[in-house]
Amino acid sequence: MIYDEAARRDREDPLAPLREAFALPEGIVYLDGNSLGALPKAVPGRIRAMLKDEWGQDLIASWNCHGWIDLPQRVGERIAPLVGAAPEQVLCCDSISVNLFKLLATALALRPGRHTILVEAGDFPTDRYLTEGLAAFLGETRCRVREAPGDRLADALDDDVAVLLATEVNFRSGRRHAMDELTRAAHEAGALALWDLAHSAGAMPVALDACGVDLAVGCGYKFLNGGPGAPAFLYVARRHQNVVEQPLTGWLGHRDPFAFADRYQPAAGVLRYQAGTPSILALRSLEAALEVFDGIDLQALRAKSLALTDFFLAAVAAEPACEALTVLTPGDHGERGSQVSLAHPEGYAIAQALIEDGVIVDFRAPDIVRFGFAPLYNSFADAAAAARSLADVLAGARHRAERFRVRARVT
Amino acid sequence: MIYDEAARRDREDPLAPLREAFALPEGIVYLDGNSLGALPKAVPGRIRAMLKDEWGQDLIASWNCHGWIDLPQRVGERIAPLVGAAPEQVLCCDSISVNLFKLLATALALRPGRHTILVEAGDFPTDRYLTEGLAAFLGETRCRVREAPGDRLADALDDDVAVLLATEVNFRSGRRHAMDELTRAAHEAGALALWDLAHSAGAMPVALDACGVDLAVGCGYKFLNGGPGAPAFLYVARRHQNVVEQPLTGWLGHRDPFAFADRYQPAAGVLRYQAGTPSILALRSLEAALEVFDGIDLQALRAKSLALTDFFLAAVAAEPACEALTVLTPGDHGERGSQVSLAHPEGYAIAQALIEDGVIVDFRAPDIVRFGFAPLYNSFADAAAAARSLADVLAGARHRAERFRVRARVT
Repeated sequence: MIYDEAARRDREDPLAPLREAFALPEGIVYLDGNSLGALPKAVPGRIRAMLKDEWGQDLIASWNCHGWIDLPQRVGERIAPLVGAAPEQVLCCDSISVNLFKLLATALALRPGRHTILVEAGDFPTDRYLTEGLAAFLGETRCRVREAPGDRLADALDDDVAVLLATEVNFRSGRRHAMDELTRAAHEAGALALWDLAHSAGAMPVALDACGVDLAVGCGYKFLNGGPGAPAFLYVARRHQNVVEQPLTGWLGHRDPFAFADRYQPAAGVLRYQAGTPSILALRSLEAALEVFDGIDLQALRAKSLALTDFFLAAVAAEPACEALTVLTPGDHGERGSQVSLAHPEGYAIAQALIEDGVIVDFRAPDIVRFGFAPLYNSFADAAAAARSLADVLAGARHRAERFRVRARVT
Repeated sequence: MIYDEAARRDREDPLAPLREAFALPEGIVYLDGNSLGALPKAVPGRIRAMLKDEWGQDLIASWNCHGWIDLPQRVGERIAPLVGAAPEQVLCCDSISVNLFKLLATALALRPGRHTILVEAGDFPTDRYLTEGLAAFLGETRCRVREAPGDRLADALDDDVAVLLATEVNFRSGRRHAMDELTRAAHEAGALALWDLAHSAGAMPVALDACGVDLAVGCGYKFLNGGPGAPAFLYVARRHQNVVEQPLTGWLGHRDPFAFADRYQPAAGVLRYQAGTPSILALRSLEAALEVFDGIDLQALRAKSLALTDFFLAAVAAEPACEALTVLTPGDHGERGSQVSLAHPEGYAIAQALIEDGVIVDFRAPDIVRFGFAPLYNSFADAAAAARSLADVLAGARHRAERFRVRARVT
């Protein structure tokens, strides 16, 4: 019955054909695209060509003749429309961690006299660790960290806050912040807003320019499907460009790197946020992956994402065996990301039992099973199969099997 | 005659068969491996398998089942013997620029009360830019930069120098520092020694442990052949591990990243120098490239490198047309890297004319033509062809052709 309904929804889904752009393994229900996006079929061919025709054949000349040198900028411009950014504000480089360091330092420089970074309690670790690391490095006379719960961030703003760092969609709960409101609150307090888009970019429209966001970072390997450890991206609003320097002054951020000049002179605009030489393999992979988004209506993508999570939530609610699960995902569409998070004291074992069933989810301590829905390739049939498998595991207490008792490291 | 001699030397070269491990384009003499190493034939197959069997098939589980999570450490351990490092001191991650930031900050923390970074005038730009960037970020009460010429570095050491940063082989001149003496001089002044191995690792033995080096960085895409923008590596001597933290406290440097703990606790040893998620594509490429070094005697590699540059220097000296060139490469073997640098007022046009002949060299401002010799794959025939082409260009004044007058950006 649920499978019939899922089949009907899939038939009626205008985005359903996009699944064919991905190489998904047979017999697997993959609901972990919020951790590692699936392999776009376009990637292997592009990588093969890059190895053979670029690196192998044209070698060093490829920096010019194949445009390697502009790839961070070009891939950034491909990401820009996905996050609501006009051109020349997005750059693809380094990791989120390294980019956060550059942008937090930028924010402190843009708000002299202010010393506090306000960060959300329970935000993704790297966001909090980097903030701590930067504060420890600069010393408390220059930088302090303040934490507040997600629903109290606006109240924690005061005239010492230089920048509010928040992740649009929380990695544990899947709860989505109101980017416009929180950005406005930061501005009213005289602070900047730095958004981490790791769990939103590529799964829903993001409106950086429209919300007046100052700075942002995002991930290349989750909903953008760029491959494991794909380069991250960063956004610097045009009004904040060319005002201050960032501390990781690598040679590729120089105005003219190939002059090999003695003194550092920052490149204009967002290009000064480059540091060292980027992996061309990694950039080519992400570049090919982004082509899947060509011509996609992001509102339609968001509608599908919400329909998938609605469908899954309803299917779980209809299963008596699932009663013991606590739904962390907000019911309100405006507050929901593209995942469903279910808490259970035996969450770890439940996740392992689901994976054994071929339903690939992940576990986040202390008790959360995450079901990530990537609207580019997940189907209603995936959601139905996951709900059935979950009910089956719980009804049969299959997660209590001895083999799930040893707690192993999971990603 | 020079070709006969070259052919004889190639026949007698025990390392000559290694050239077969690389996919070198037909009809090209590639002498730019000190900028971008050639493509090892093992790489495409390994990348294809990584895409299909790892990312494509096992998806997120690959972090464990294919050992992605340990790759920075494992690739680091493969590099360790090439730089004379005992295990658990080398990590492969990020770029040289980002790693320099981590290690310079480490050095300042290890030498509290000292505030000066001593750096070589004319060193590779990123080394100097990063040093400037760090000093500007910390402010002059905490960090100052002092520059000295390469042959005056030891004299410039005093009791405010926290760390001496030097590149073993200079990118312009190809001159090699005496790592042991300069490290000893730094230690006698109470400073640490941080070495950049970009132009030495993979071309000659490096003896980090034996020289008592404190910290080092190196490049994955020059003589290690890991591909354009391959991850860099860093070295932290065991005695300096677990003493201080580095500022780029990304989640992968945490003691237990997958606990997603609230507070940062650095991993033990060199692992705390990881920041964000690394590109697995880029690491797999470098890992495959490093297999070429399996079983190689680094002393034999060094002997071949010196024989190649000796042979090329002699061939150039024998050409009357080459009289106008100034040889920057030291005649003394102990002071020579694995490149020959020739200066000429029309160096840029000469490099372009050589490239048009299929002799791939590069130009470094203001007037240097660099001939990089990668002893893994360059032959004596390459050296002979380059010398002949150079003499031919100069004798015919071919570099004065109109088409070389427009100065374009070259890498």
